[in-house]
Amino acid sequence: MQRYFLNEHYKGQNLVRITGEDVHHIGRVMRMKIGDHIWVVFNESKTASAAITNIEDTFVEVEILGWEPQNKELPVQITVASGLPKGDKLEWIIQKGTELGAFEFVPFIADRSVVKWDKKKEVKKIERWNKIAKEAAEQAHRQVLPTVHPPFTLTELIEYSNQFTCKLVAYEEAAKEGETSSFAKALQSAKAGDSFFIVYGPEGGLSEKEKDVLINNNFVICGLGPRILRTETAPLYTLAAISYHFELMR
Amino acid sequence: MQRYFLNEHYKGQNLVRITGEDVHHIGRVMRMKIGDHIWVVFNESKTASAAITNIEDTFVEVEILGWEPQNKELPVQITVASGLPKGDKLEWIIQKGTELGAFEFVPFIADRSVVKWDKKKEVKKIERWNKIAKEAAEQAHRQVLPTVHPPFTLTELIEYSNQFTCKLVAYEEAAKEGETSSFAKALQSAKAGDSFFIVYGPEGGLSEKEKDVLINNNFVICGLGPRILRTETAPLYTLAAISYHFELMR
Repeated sequence: MQRYFLNEHYKGQNLVRITGEDVHHIGRVMRMKIGDHIWVVFNESKTASAAITNIEDTFVEVEILGWEPQNKELPVQITVASGLPKGDKLEWIIQKGTELGAFEFVPFIADRSVVKWDKKKEVKKIERWNKIAKEAAEQAHRQVLPTVHPPFTLTELIEYSNQFTCKLVAYEEAAKEGETSSFAKALQSAKAGDSFFIVYGPEGGLSEKEKDVLINNNFVICGLGPRILRTETAPLYTLAAISYHFELMR
Repeated sequence: MQRYFLNEHYKGQNLVRITGEDVHHIGRVMRMKIGDHIWVVFNESKTASAAITNIEDTFVEVEILGWEPQNKELPVQITVASGLPKGDKLEWIIQKGTELGAFEFVPFIADRSVVKWDKKKEVKKIERWNKIAKEAAEQAHRQVLPTVHPPFTLTELIEYSNQFTCKLVAYEEAAKEGETSSFAKALQSAKAGDSFFIVYGPEGGLSEKEKDVLINNNFVICGLGPRILRTETAPLYTLAAISYHFELMR
């Protein structure tokens, strides 16, 4: 069943209007008819099953039939902060990361980021990234639509991270030295509602300088096992481990 | 430091000869010289650091200097059995799965596999898949080179699976019904040296018939959390969770 993120608060109404690009998707792409059912996702993970009551050029009206149990989301919010990687790897991180339950993506321009960030093309890039998150969230049956921010500088990232319960850095050198306990300890100490801000280096890893700045700002260095993970694999490792820890393990 | 898989048993020798494609890689691609150091990986995860003593057209000779600790591999062997997916998704599964510690890949022709398996192109495909596994194993610092088999039928898969300690199926419908304990229970009951055979459906999932055949052959159905994972993401989830369980958690 198709899922649409409304990006609005539920106000108690029985009839809901969908506007914007989703109107075209419902009417022309999926060719839905009056009576067809869809999921509509409000803020705060409130997700309703709804029947289409009216299809117009500029809006689709639906009637709420019932509510999906609020159990699709991780009990902790995970923000994935990736050093800007090459090519389309960030799109892959966003797509898979959204499937795996990430709350938010904060790319940042790392010392060793090869790709040049072109401010002129920024708007189109951010649009594309957010569209990828939206499609992935719909397919994965998410009840939250993850946000993708424009790339931060390290300074902006540090400032942004201050609001988070737990701040971690996936650091390859730590793994090589056999560091295995910080990540598990962080998960064991966490409780529902906590927010994790996790930093990953680009290809080539984080620089010594970046690592020192993060440590001086109370980030905890973590290894992610003995095998070296690529920049696009490491975030998926942590998200899967977090899901396993909080959702499958007793 | 470059890593080369020799695919032979260590016989106690101090000088080792490398032959085949790796000779070209060492001499022409990496342009190494006498005295340069590399890792050479024998069977049974025996991995030596070695110095190049001679570079010829048909072989490279190295002298063993020391041994890497045998700690890069998961304590349980994981075989990833993927219903043949579309496009190059299996290549992603092989590459990322190898980074994440998979022991072996057994693609199979599922009821809902869209792609037609062309026996004429089989040899080239298998070569390519195994090359991807090799490159990923080298970069991830694996001490085992995962094998990629030609696609099995379901019957061949069932027969092959009989040698494994634990047989699981990642089944989307189970996740939708809230099944959360089978996977964790399987990991909790496992001990070092066990082998896991895990089946994943293609896009569209496994058919009812396939699910029934697997259950009748003692496979355990598992959910992988409340979010729907794509065919190429599910194997990565299980590998990461297994690594977290055995390598990071106390």
